[in-house]
Parts: sequence; structure tokens; C-alpha cells
Amino acid sequence: MVVMPDFSKLALAKHLQLKGKISIKLKDDLSTREKLSIYYTPGVGAVSSFVAENPDKARDYTWLNNVVAVISDGSAVLGLGDIGPYGALPVMEGKSMLFKHFAGIDAVPIVLDVHTEDEIVAAVKAIAPSFGAINLEDIAAPICFNVEARLIDELPIPVFHDDQHGTAIVTLAGLINATKITNRQLNSSKIVLVGSGAAGTAIAKLLSAYAPQAELVLVDSKGIVASSRTDLNSSKLELLKFTNPKNLSGSLKDALAGADIFIGVSKPGLLNKQLIALMKKDPIVFAMANPLPEIMPEAAYEAGAAVIATGRSDFPNQVNNALAFPGIFRGALDNKVHKITLEHKLAVAEVIAALVEKPTKDEIIPSVLDERLVPAISKVIV
Amino acid sequence: MVVMPDFSKLALAKHLQLKGKISIKLKDDLSTREKLSIYYTPGVGAVSSFVAENPDKARDYTWLNNVVAVISDGSAVLGLGDIGPYGALPVMEGKSMLFKHFAGIDAVPIVLDVHTEDEIVAAVKAIAPSFGAINLEDIAAPICFNVEARLIDELPIPVFHDDQHGTAIVTLAGLINATKITNRQLNSSKIVLVGSGAAGTAIAKLLSAYAPQAELVLVDSKGIVASSRTDLNSSKLELLKFTNPKNLSGSLKDALAGADIFIGVSKPGLLNKQLIALMKKDPIVFAMANPLPEIMPEAAYEAGAAVIATGRSDFPNQVNNALAFPGIFRGALDNKVHKITLEHKLAVAEVIAALVEKPTKDEIIPSVLDERLVPAISKVIV
Repeated sequence: MVVMPDFSKLALAKHLQLKGKISIKLKDDLSTREKLSIYYTPGVGAVSSFVAENPDKARDYTWLNNVVAVISDGSAVLGLGDIGPYGALPVMEGKSMLFKHFAGIDAVPIVLDVHTEDEIVAAVKAIAPSFGAINLEDIAAPICFNVEARLIDELPIPVFHDDQHGTAIVTLAGLINATKITNRQLNSSKIVLVGSGAAGTAIAKLLSAYAPQAELVLVDSKGIVASSRTDLNSSKLELLKFTNPKNLSGSLKDALAGADIFIGVSKPGLLNKQLIALMKKDPIVFAMANPLPEIMPEAAYEAGAAVIATGRSDFPNQVNNALAFPGIFRGALDNKVHKITLEHKLAVAEVIAALVEKPTKDEIIPSVLDERLVPAISKVIV
Repeated sequence: MVVMPDFSKLALAKHLQLKGKISIKLKDDLSTREKLSIYYTPGVGAVSSFVAENPDKARDYTWLNNVVAVISDGSAVLGLGDIGPYGALPVMEGKSMLFKHFAGIDAVPIVLDVHTEDEIVAAVKAIAPSFGAINLEDIAAPICFNVEARLIDELPIPVFHDDQHGTAIVTLAGLINATKITNRQLNSSKIVLVGSGAAGTAIAKLLSAYAPQAELVLVDSKGIVASSRTDLNSSKLELLKFTNPKNLSGSLKDALAGADIFIGVSKPGLLNKQLIALMKKDPIVFAMANPLPEIMPEAAYEAGAAVIATGRSDFPNQVNNALAFPGIFRGALDNKVHKITLEHKLAVAEVIAALVEKPTKDEIIPSVLDERLVPAISKVIV
């Protein structure tokens, strides 16, 4: 088994040393009284008057054209669960670093001390004029679904819950290439998707839009999501409308019989060699639980898997949100897009897949360091 | 009459050119996979876990130790009035520049799309864990008073409405030196204060704390604030408890008879030579309406004023909030102060006054560019 380096100790030491990973920089200095009078009073009064009368021009006279809020209530931080706003802040600052590094976007971490759907929506709407776009992050399911839907509906700027759609887009990109090298069509594949949180739900929706003929079977902690179940919440009942077309019921084992593809956004160790043996020949395994996947790549290959993807940077084929969101936000800001649509998400998945010219089992997804990503993706967010 | 340079045109052109006066800077680069793993996943997970268990340590591992929110609902922006959040944004960005330039503080402009007391309080409380301190800005009276009081009471971090206290502190600093050079004691002076908005109210409170024996007479648009009036709101009734000890009534003219000091935070042209002639010999005139003062300095001197202060940078003795707030926030952040108290405000006024070694009529207040300000002020915020 591969042992990961101890990033925990390194991270604690480095964070304590830096005391903050981001800071504010001025675009011009304030060394003279004249500059003070231009950037602040009295000069700024003319800018404020003009913007107040032409609010659509605010982005030309302020940092609105390049600033994104990275917002979390800390209710589902990484694999750590509901650790609250202070615990979430280091992750949101890190995400802000990614925004700047990969896409040149100024991102501000905002952690919320409120946790109900109504309170989160109210808080985000209240501060929304401060930002050109909103990245929701690490908000627990099922609250995240209505929070995002209401904000998309009620705000004039793009709102994107990256845990849902970033993961779904990159998963689809990987599947496009994984099916290619195993001579499959997604539309005629049986896909078992384990996990019905933010990421699982978004993957189900995006897959069903991309490959509506696929046999998509959703599995949660109680087994196959099926009409015979009486414990399904409204979100799962919604998913049932376009999953499990053969009305299967039972456990993960029942679901996997004859499956082409396993997609896990669940928990470590959920998959094993015996279960993979139930799948079709040359199965595709996306084991994306973090930091420990549902099955380690070595074991999955031994059980006959043809392609493996995980969420980890120390294995090939890392399904990493950072492949998608920088370009999506870059495009949304530059092209003045008000909403990120289903069509955008499908297009981005295809762009990411197409950047791998000759997919192999060790390269179905580009590296997160691939500099072609942001320009290529931002072009399709129009 | 002095004509101000046309900063409006310069400001519009420069803002359009820069498209935002501030940006986010990374404290380290993200050039390697190792750094990604330290600053983001998986390493950051250890930092988040640690901070979640020790929220008081968040400031040591994130930018909380150096980040301030500059928050406005756009209801009282400069002299422009209620121009809304987009109109407010250029000013808040400018204020963020001042924070960085003068005190090295990372300040984030937050403009609110809500305007009632309860909504503003709820929004600020919701995002408060994101910041080490809160600077309220350009929120209209009387809402600003309860908003600030409730936030100070309910939040664990410093909350400071600069339009109130910044102006009051610098005004008091100027008065300390102005009385010195005119051989007065504030405690035995008659002071006429015109304007009962955010700044006027805070000046009244701070003056009454510093010089409780002074005869302080407040004048609003209806005349002297007196017990005979039936139109006073609760804020003015509160001020009446420690102003107008001789129970004067009538107009500004009646108030000014025999006054030592005029303080205006009202509107252009309110004061004239005839009115100044009613005051005691060698009167002190603080005409701080912006950008056009209650009386121009030249006219005030012709009418016999001994010392003049305004809010303008093109005259001597500029009463400028930027003298106070950078040091106050620097001290509050560095010394982990939870509340800015009355004692802090009085101490800061004395520190600012003391920085002028030999006050003259042309120098009762230090220059905003005086680099001794922030270190001297931050020392007394403990």
C-alpha cells in the first residue's frame, strides 16, 4: 500500500509560519496626497455617483470584474464533517489561493456563522453586491441543493457549488476518456454510483444529461435507491426519476452484478476485489473517497479493473475540482455570464476530456498543472 | 476662494484604467504539487481539524490576525446620501487601500444589499467569523447607532463605526491643541456643535466624556436641541441629557452668542462672518462639511477666527479619519482587543494631539502622512 507523505505536520508548521496564506495588494501606491484624493475622497465621490447611476458599470470601476467569494458554513468540510466556520477558514483560504494561482481571480474566503437554508441564503444575498460571482463550498447535503438553487434564481451573478458540479464535471471528463479506452459507450453502460451527498447527486444529474440511455444505479448507505424503499428523502426521490431504470433493489453487491463502471464518492474500503469480480470484464473504477479511496488502485487492478481514478494527487488520474472551477469562473467573469448552466457543465467536461490527446489507463484526465485548462474552459462559458 | 483641482475627472479615468484598486496576493506560490498538498488538500485538513478544536487559534493559522471587513449598506456615502451598495463600493475599496497603506492591514470591502437594523446586524454577524475586526462605514443615522451597539455587544471581535468615532477622535485631538493655543480649557468652554448625524452624535459623546464641564450646545436643522422641542427622536433625547446645560432654545444664532468653539458636521455655507462675530474673541472654528465647509477658512479668519480646521486636504488642519482608524485597528488586531472602548478613544485623541510638538494655528493636527501615527496609536489600544 502506498503511504502518503505526512502533509499534516508540514501543513500545520507552514500555516503557523505564514499566519494567513493570502493578503490584500494595492494596484497603485498611495504615496502622495494627490493619489489619496483620486482613490479616496474627494475624487472617489465622482466614481461612486457614476456607479450608483449606472450599477451595471460597477465592474468597470471596481474589482467586481475579478472578485469571487468562496463561501462556506463549515458544515461539510473535506472529510471532516460539520466543523464550523473557523475550522472551514483554512480550506477557504486555500481555495482562494487556487483561484488566484490557476485563474488570476481575486477570491475572498467568507465563512458563515449561520447554518439553516434560509439564513445562508439571506447572508449570501446580503453581501452579494460585493462580488462578481459566488463559489459555494463545503456546505452539507441536502441543504446545499436548495441554497444553491435559490441563490442561482435570485441573484444576478453566477453561483456555483463546486463540491457538486466541479466533481461531477471532472468525473464526466474522466469517464468520457475511460470509456473510450475500454471501447464502451457511456449511453449503453451500467453505472453504479455510490454516495448520495452533494457530489453524488450532481454526478447523477450530469451523467443522466450526458448519457440518458445509461443504466445508472444509485447506492446509498442503505443500499440501492429503489422505489421499494420507504426511507427516501425528496432529493433521492427526485434522483429515482432518472436512475435505476430496471428497478433493482438490494445491496451494493446486487447493484454491481454486470456493471461496467463503479463511481464512489462514499467512504474508504467500501469496494473490494470480490465485489469488482462481479462487474463486467475490464471495469472502470472511480474510487474518489478522500483521502482514502473506496479501494486502493493496486488492489483494483489486481481484481481486473481496466482504469482507475481517485481523488489523490499521488496516483494517476486524479479527479480534482481544480481542473474545472478556475476556468469556469474565469469565463463567467470575463464573458459576463449570469448563470452556469447544464450546457456549460457538459461543455466543460468535454473540453477537459479533449485535452488528453491519447488517453491511456494512466492518463484519462489532464494534470491540474496543465496550463491549457483555464483558457480552453473559459472559452466555452459564454 | 480656493478652487479644488478637478479630482472627479482624474478619479473616473484612473478607476476605469485600473478596474479595481485592490487585489488578492498569495503569501507563497503554488508552483509544486507538494505546496498544493500543504496549502490545500490533503494537508490543510490537519489545520482545519486543529482550528476547529481550538477556534481561538484560528488567527495564528489564517489571515484572521490581519483582516478587517469594511462594511457599508451604502445609505450615507460621503456627502452623496443613500446611493446603495454598488455606489458605495468604490469608497469601500478606497478605504481598504488606506487600511493597507497606512497600517498594513488586509481590508475587504463588503457592501450590503440590506438596509434595516435587523438585517444589517444579521448579515454582519453571519460573516463575522471571516474577519478579525469590523469597520462599519457610511451607514446612515440613526440606524448606525443601534447597528454598532448591537454588534459590539454580540460579536467577539472589535466593531468600530469610523464615521462616528474616527471623526470624533480627530476632532477632539484638534480641539485639545486649538484650545491650548487660544489659552482655553475645553472644560470651561462654550461649544456649539452643528449636525446630529453619525459624526455629530459621536463628537458630542466624546467631548462630554473628555470635558464634562463644558457648555455643549447641539444644533440640528430645526435649531438648538432643547427640552422645549417636541420633535426629538430617542437619539437626540439621549444627547440632551448631557448637552445644553443652560437650557437654551432658538436658532444657531442664539446658540453662537458668546461661544468659544464652533464645530460643524453639517452643510456648506451654514456659517458666515456675521455669525462668527457673535462668538467670543479668538474663536475656534471647525468647519468640517465635505467637500465644501460651513465657511471657507479665508472668510473665517477675516471674521476673527483664531484657528480653523476643515475636512479638506488642501487647507491646513485637516480633520481626517485616516489619522485615527489605521492605528486603532492595528492595535486592536495586534493586541487581541475585543472592544474599542471610550477610554481607548480618549487615549487616541490625546496621542494624536501630542504628536504635534508645538501647535500653531496652521498645525493643530498631524499630517495624515505622519508615520508616527500608527505605532503611537496602536500602543494605547490594549
